[in-house]
Amino acid sequence: MQIAIVLYDRFTVLDAIGPYQVLTNLPGAEVTFVAERPGLIADEEGILKLEVEASLADVPHPDVVLVPGGPGQNDQMEDGPLHGWLRAVDETTTWTTSVCTGSLILAAAGLLTGRRATSYWLALDELGRYGAIPVTQRVVFDEKYVTAAGVSSGIDMALALAGRIAGDRTAQAIQLGIEYDPQPPYDAGSPDRAPADLVAAMRRRSG
Amino acid sequence: MQIAIVLYDRFTVLDAIGPYQVLTNLPGAEVTFVAERPGLIADEEGILKLEVEASLADVPHPDVVLVPGGPGQNDQMEDGPLHGWLRAVDETTTWTTSVCTGSLILAAAGLLTGRRATSYWLALDELGRYGAIPVTQRVVFDEKYVTAAGVSSGIDMALALAGRIAGDRTAQAIQLGIEYDPQPPYDAGSPDRAPADLVAAMRRRSG
Repeated sequence: MQIAIVLYDRFTVLDAIGPYQVLTNLPGAEVTFVAERPGLIADEEGILKLEVEASLADVPHPDVVLVPGGPGQNDQMEDGPLHGWLRAVDETTTWTTSVCTGSLILAAAGLLTGRRATSYWLALDELGRYGAIPVTQRVVFDEKYVTAAGVSSGIDMALALAGRIAGDRTAQAIQLGIEYDPQPPYDAGSPDRAPADLVAAMRRRSG
Repeated sequence: MQIAIVLYDRFTVLDAIGPYQVLTNLPGAEVTFVAERPGLIADEEGILKLEVEASLADVPHPDVVLVPGGPGQNDQMEDGPLHGWLRAVDETTTWTTSVCTGSLILAAAGLLTGRRATSYWLALDELGRYGAIPVTQRVVFDEKYVTAAGVSSGIDMALALAGRIAGDRTAQAIQLGIEYDPQPPYDAGSPDRAPADLVAAMRRRSG
């Protein structure tokens, strides 16, 4: 089973690495980072640089594709090589997935039209404008299309996906292996429960 | 405020990247990856390769140091350049921290002697053998020494640390920014609650 994680400049690294840490533990899985231009790909901060060896053409038939989000998503919304590759591989994937604003890229490529999907909480309206049906939910399955909410939600998505692919027991073993027993020090991780003025300030800044 | 994240071959990438994603959002923070030998550092899978530009000598006075864990931790237990650097920087750090088996490295370097600390659930006994007082807790603060349990716990630690450094409101904004509202699909992330036979199997394999 080949799992392709798409990287592009100014991606959000936890979007990709949360699922990577889970999915590399799937028995028989081969995880590959793939980019339009192989080489060093920098994250949104420009601090982290990840060496990507595979081009899109090198990975024509992944079983699973995962698209992370991040500020650089804005540069990936035009039809071009990445969209063409996503549409082509989607014809044979078992699962087509995204984390955070990665779903905007999938939607812009035409893969989420009329489908229930989610995204970063500040990007849900935009997701709707690209033809998806936005759902406020941490992980959304619509047939083989699996989308996750913001950044850290990729861990939850990947564990749910691991369960579908390899069964509950394997997914539970992976969860125990990464000691994923989250205990956030604050209850501020969703716009429903974070302090209202903080949510409003972030909405203003993003608008 | 300079935050140094130490990398070494066969580290566990989520140990480093969970905190990285949180701490890069701290106002005024400069996060630097540092390694004994700069260049491409491969994770435990050998799939992910991260470009590290700074050597230990390049970062003599970080305010915060973070040591991740991973299978490669076994190669970092002898006294040598990394231990010497950790002891030297610890003299002036504000926070000396670790995730997962990174605490074994701190302990082997002599920095956790007689201190309450935690580690990956399968490494707590070993932590005790290196002179720390092992605590079964997700994040342990003992003065400026902050240790986290396995892999994913680095996110919780980094948010708690962000609160201490920059106040609750900033930490809450970071939490909302990474939409950290965890909803694991299973309740299997700690040895207390995972299926007992799974815990036993993992203990056998690690023993």
